[in-house]
Amino acid sequence: MELSSNWRWKFEGSEVAKKASAFTIRSYLNPLRETIDKSDITKSVIPLSHGDPSGFPSFRTTKLSEDALLDALQSAKYNGYPDPQTCYILQATRAVAEYLSHDYPHELSANDVLMTAGAKQAIDVLITALAVPGANILLPRPGYPTYEAIATFTHLEMRHYDLLPEQDWEVDIDGVEALADDRTVAIVVINPGNPCGNVYKREHLKKIAEAARKVGMLVISDEAYAHLVFGSNPFVPMGVFGEISPILTIGSISKKWMVPGWRLGWIAMCDPNGILQKHGVVESIKNYLNLGIVPPALTLGAITRILVETPEDFYSNTINLLRKAADICYTGLREIRCFTPYKPHGSMFLMAKLNLSFLEGINSDLEFCTRLAREESVVVLPGEALGMKNWVRVTFAVEISVLEDGLSRIKAFCFRNAKQQ
Amino acid sequence: MELSSNWRWKFEGSEVAKKASAFTIRSYLNPLRETIDKSDITKSVIPLSHGDPSGFPSFRTTKLSEDALLDALQSAKYNGYPDPQTCYILQATRAVAEYLSHDYPHELSANDVLMTAGAKQAIDVLITALAVPGANILLPRPGYPTYEAIATFTHLEMRHYDLLPEQDWEVDIDGVEALADDRTVAIVVINPGNPCGNVYKREHLKKIAEAARKVGMLVISDEAYAHLVFGSNPFVPMGVFGEISPILTIGSISKKWMVPGWRLGWIAMCDPNGILQKHGVVESIKNYLNLGIVPPALTLGAITRILVETPEDFYSNTINLLRKAADICYTGLREIRCFTPYKPHGSMFLMAKLNLSFLEGINSDLEFCTRLAREESVVVLPGEALGMKNWVRVTFAVEISVLEDGLSRIKAFCFRNAKQQ
Repeated sequence: MELSSNWRWKFEGSEVAKKASAFTIRSYLNPLRETIDKSDITKSVIPLSHGDPSGFPSFRTTKLSEDALLDALQSAKYNGYPDPQTCYILQATRAVAEYLSHDYPHELSANDVLMTAGAKQAIDVLITALAVPGANILLPRPGYPTYEAIATFTHLEMRHYDLLPEQDWEVDIDGVEALADDRTVAIVVINPGNPCGNVYKREHLKKIAEAARKVGMLVISDEAYAHLVFGSNPFVPMGVFGEISPILTIGSISKKWMVPGWRLGWIAMCDPNGILQKHGVVESIKNYLNLGIVPPALTLGAITRILVETPEDFYSNTINLLRKAADICYTGLREIRCFTPYKPHGSMFLMAKLNLSFLEGINSDLEFCTRLAREESVVVLPGEALGMKNWVRVTFAVEISVLEDGLSRIKAFCFRNAKQQ
Repeated sequence: MELSSNWRWKFEGSEVAKKASAFTIRSYLNPLRETIDKSDITKSVIPLSHGDPSGFPSFRTTKLSEDALLDALQSAKYNGYPDPQTCYILQATRAVAEYLSHDYPHELSANDVLMTAGAKQAIDVLITALAVPGANILLPRPGYPTYEAIATFTHLEMRHYDLLPEQDWEVDIDGVEALADDRTVAIVVINPGNPCGNVYKREHLKKIAEAARKVGMLVISDEAYAHLVFGSNPFVPMGVFGEISPILTIGSISKKWMVPGWRLGWIAMCDPNGILQKHGVVESIKNYLNLGIVPPALTLGAITRILVETPEDFYSNTINLLRKAADICYTGLREIRCFTPYKPHGSMFLMAKLNLSFLEGINSDLEFCTRLAREESVVVLPGEALGMKNWVRVTFAVEISVLEDGLSRIKAFCFRNAKQQ
């Protein structure tokens, strides 16, 4: 074929994804995992880095969930696209509305709920729907970096407010009000907290809603870890304050039912005054969802039974297990000189401050995590990934024996690398 | 609470999704479905509007697929996020590479394959990865409107080339070359054809690859309906011409195995010369995938068995059924004066031209479809949705008895609304 003298391949990869992708937890964890010495067969890999214990026997989902999915499969009614005739999206939204209403002073309706392919799609859709030119959003530091990734991708300006470690990781409300301006459209609140394991009191949530109203912004309340609390504060959904400020709640079956691979979540619009509708936010969210994928049909087919029929003892066993693991993790890290862990009361994580002055030749959290992975096959998340230099996020939601093994390896690592004093 | 005098809610919904969403097939079908007279219980709804026969008994997926998913569920190994330790994404990409390699002159490797949550996520990722400022993409008319929706959303300029109905819907190659310019990065080719039911000959595919090379663009080959062919042309994957121009192939288990609700697809990079890598396209695709959701774990766990062990008679039964349905649909529409159907040889659709001069008081394809839905509870897709005014897309992939009922209702509708001559 004759090609002209100035011929060339004209395509190139878009750059914005690279910038956005750099924020993701995966972009930190993948290199750490590659660091692990696979030839050392004496040391199994201990993943204290992400919130998915579903593969450990003690955290296996309940038989009821598995049976509900099995029934959906065997019915052959959930192999296709959700079709208006089959009505199973409507059934699912009704089931979620009823389930959430247990915790609300008013009833949510099926129209207040939108199904998503996990909490991640919900985050994607909400951030994108709000990303109008010039707007900005307030994100927690430390937080969950998917927000940073999607905001970067959609060119939504991010401003970070602080969580206060000495006040049980409460929101720095004064800081929030100082950060906000005339173009601030939303604040993201994660409760129960990822990465901090905190659980907000009702009064604190009310203060956040009031600050949001004062600013004129809505609240995105990320409740992916809803009900996974084991301290003195009960879980309170932000949506109960929807009269004060519109609340967009993100939920999912991934954590409470230990099935993140089943890919089902939701957006609940807690806005009794209809402000989101009036400002075009509901339409925009629906339009974005319409562009995206629909959730797996089988999980939609199983969701009603999962929400209604899961036996109570599955929930209480999970809570007891998480409480025990959290205690072991917190106590274990406290015994290591270079760590200052903060006690978790919910979710699957705790944050621990690293005091590198106790260690020889380790100059950052990232270096700490990299060497720990290489020398001990233990993976924890560097605080840098969460905007917190020289902290680490540790999950305690693994089999207890694995957690104990992990902690003793961390201890050995710190001892071996301790500065001679 | 004291609010300042210029206080207001500051959020609003982003507008771009509205524009993009207007392109989707759902945005045409949802109003049509709402048009249907639900009080008329004598007429069941006949959906000849979309390519998902999975809910009809004759098109039920094979027992092998259901068993493979069942085994994945019962193993409890696929409830979580895909983790590098479990390696099941690697297993899935290997299985897809081996499966695709049967049709290729060279072996694809696992590294050439990326798993997606259905073909839709693959489209989203590819279009977005190529959307650099000022670039344009060539899309078929008629085509599959998800491309238009995502291109609109990502601000990638679209240019439409024609498929030629009198030449078995071949690509107007001269038209393609005339449309392309210095900023044309890709051409989308859908084969087997949606919406036209065409199947391209090997030589025609080669000509497309050569035109792409001449222009300096890559080819996105949408093979969602791969192997669903029942005419004289065999299915040939575009990727066999990857030496001529880089080919990004989109595939899925949704159609061949009748499980669109299971949400599994892939991108295969057929580019033996490594041009995509060199131009940053591979990295960009991976970064976008990293921002998105992972496919449902259970389907990933089942995919190897589905690809390898599905009995041959499932495939041949499907083809025989589709051939029979296509014949009935084509013949039936040909008997109706206002229709000029074009014979399909693959996929699940045919296109038919409407001659409105034979009808009284019906002035557009959209009006035709709306009145057909209201009066006969039969849903077909207006050509307007595909850039083809006064055509309709009809799927024949439904239970034969349903198809026959639908055709007789269309006939009655056209007869009742015929112009007196």
